[in-house]
Amino acid sequence: MEIYKHTVQYYETDKMGITHHSNYIRWMEEARIDFLKQIGWDYARLEKEGIISPVVEVSCKYKKSTTFAEDVFIAVSVNEFKGVKLILSYNMKDTVGNIVAESVSVHCFINESGKPVRLAKEFPELYNVLMELSEAE
Amino acid sequence: MEIYKHTVQYYETDKMGITHHSNYIRWMEEARIDFLKQIGWDYARLEKEGIISPVVEVSCKYKKSTTFAEDVFIAVSVNEFKGVKLILSYNMKDTVGNIVAESVSVHCFINESGKPVRLAKEFPELYNVLMELSEAE
Amino acid sequence: MEIYKHTVQYYETDKMGITHHSNYIRWMEEARIDFLKQIGWDYARLEKEGIISPVVEVSCKYKKSTTFAEDVFIAVSVNEFKGVKLILSYNMKDTVGNIVAESVSVHCFINESGKPVRLAKEFPELYNVLMELSEAE
Amino acid sequence: MEIYKHTVQYYETDKMGITHHSNYIRWMEEARIDFLKQIGWDYARLEKEGIISPVVEVSCKYKKSTTFAEDVFIAVSVNEFKGVKLILSYNMKDTVGNIVAESVSVHCFINESGKPVRLAKEFPELYNVLMELSEAE
Repeated sequence: MEIYKHTVQYYETDKMGITHHSNYIRWMEEARIDFLKQIGWDYARLEKEGIISPVVEVSCKYKKSTTFAEDVFIAVSVNEFKGVKLILSYNMKDTVGNIVAESVSVHCFINESGKPVRLAKEFPELYNVLMELSEAE
Repeated sequence: MEIYKHTVQYYETDKMGITHHSNYIRWMEEARIDFLKQIGWDYARLEKEGIISPVVEVSCKYKKSTTFAEDVFIAVSVNEFKGVKLILSYNMKDTVGNIVAESVSVHCFINESGKPVRLAKEFPELYNVLMELSEAE
Repeated sequence: MEIYKHTVQYYETDKMGITHHSNYIRWMEEARIDFLKQIGWDYARLEKEGIISPVVEVSCKYKKSTTFAEDVFIAVSVNEFKGVKLILSYNMKDTVGNIVAESVSVHCFINESGKPVRLAKEFPELYNVLMELSEAE
Repeated sequence: MEIYKHTVQYYETDKMGITHHSNYIRWMEEARIDFLKQIGWDYARLEKEGIISPVVEVSCKYKKSTTFAEDVFIAVSVNEFKGVKLILSYNMKDTVGNIVAESVSVHCFINESGKPVRLAKEFPELYNVLMELSEAE
């Protein structure tokens, strides 16, 4: 799995001179979208199949501040998946390998009418790839 | 017309220690939505009537920087309206009356299928209020 | 303690038609700054005293989506404080009282040279008010 | 000069389903920073030399909406430079070459004490490269 890179933008800094903490939550989304693309389920495909995967929970531990022009490398992995709830982990490092943040997002899968989707039955291919990735952890 | 107030948020500052310039464009939207509400055309009503009013142009002159916790007072006025294009002007002042920014946004009116709406004919009430406000300038 | 109100801005929505989840993290900051002001420690005072209180962790559970123009009411309380780490809880409700999100932020206190501040000794007034609020829970 | 590419992020869309117009102002900054880097004056160098270049004006004409996952290609050029004020032009295109936005930003050059910098005398190298680029237009 390729690691996602985000370069800190000037508009992402705050008056402390560092990256505002809310941006890491946005970078998690960027990295997650890239992760889904890499496993063959980019947003366009999910949308076409009518699968929506809302964020039901996020948490983030800030370990080391970053600032403008720094590259942040975000590794995404499946923390837990048993068929319904998907828990993703994000490990964010700077250029020299220091951990800058560690975070988690929790997702469910619903269809366009807001009903839970039973992945194993309705989307076995997506179910299998997530299951495999969760076992690889 | 009541003047719109925006209090600068911490996350709107940047590493220069001042409000990032992109936020003024967002405040224009806040003030514009409030302005439309004050003239009897809040977003819900526009949406119900099927009128969409996209931003086709913005410009902003930055006169004096602002920073966290400052109140910015935004006066909106109709700069020009002849029936098709709506030009709004925004005058932004700080607490002591200094101008912090002067800006303009240009809008058109379309329906849900993206076709231009002829306000005079289809929405005479909105047409009249904008016409009156443009003449008051 | 007065409850903080945030009105969802248009630019805070996303293509799902709802408030983007990253904004709740920003609203936590808005509510936290207001909370500190209410207990007599607004940002200006903290800065003057040389106290910096970084966010070391955030987590947020999304219970019900919100959208443009909705008012969100955010109650902040001291979840835990034993002298070093401050844990704040945020309870976010919509106009009819439904919980839209429940979240937590964790903070430490450092001085301008990045060293931990011993609140009990150096800032007994702030220490006492946080201690009292933590016991009130 | 290499063209800057920005991929539209999910959090940059709004409830119209398109990129919120305020983001184009942020992309101008991204492209400008990249442009300065390409001409040998990245932010770190400007900062080291004590040159600050605030945005004094922006304007943007929105020609065609963009949305999540689209690539936007931004070409930056020196529109005008006579030694004091720098005017940059931005031409933004989508993948098939349609213009999505055309914009302009105006900048001045000040030192750390806020005084105008006389580029020709104090920073002839930066003066010359901007002069050359302005003549190339």
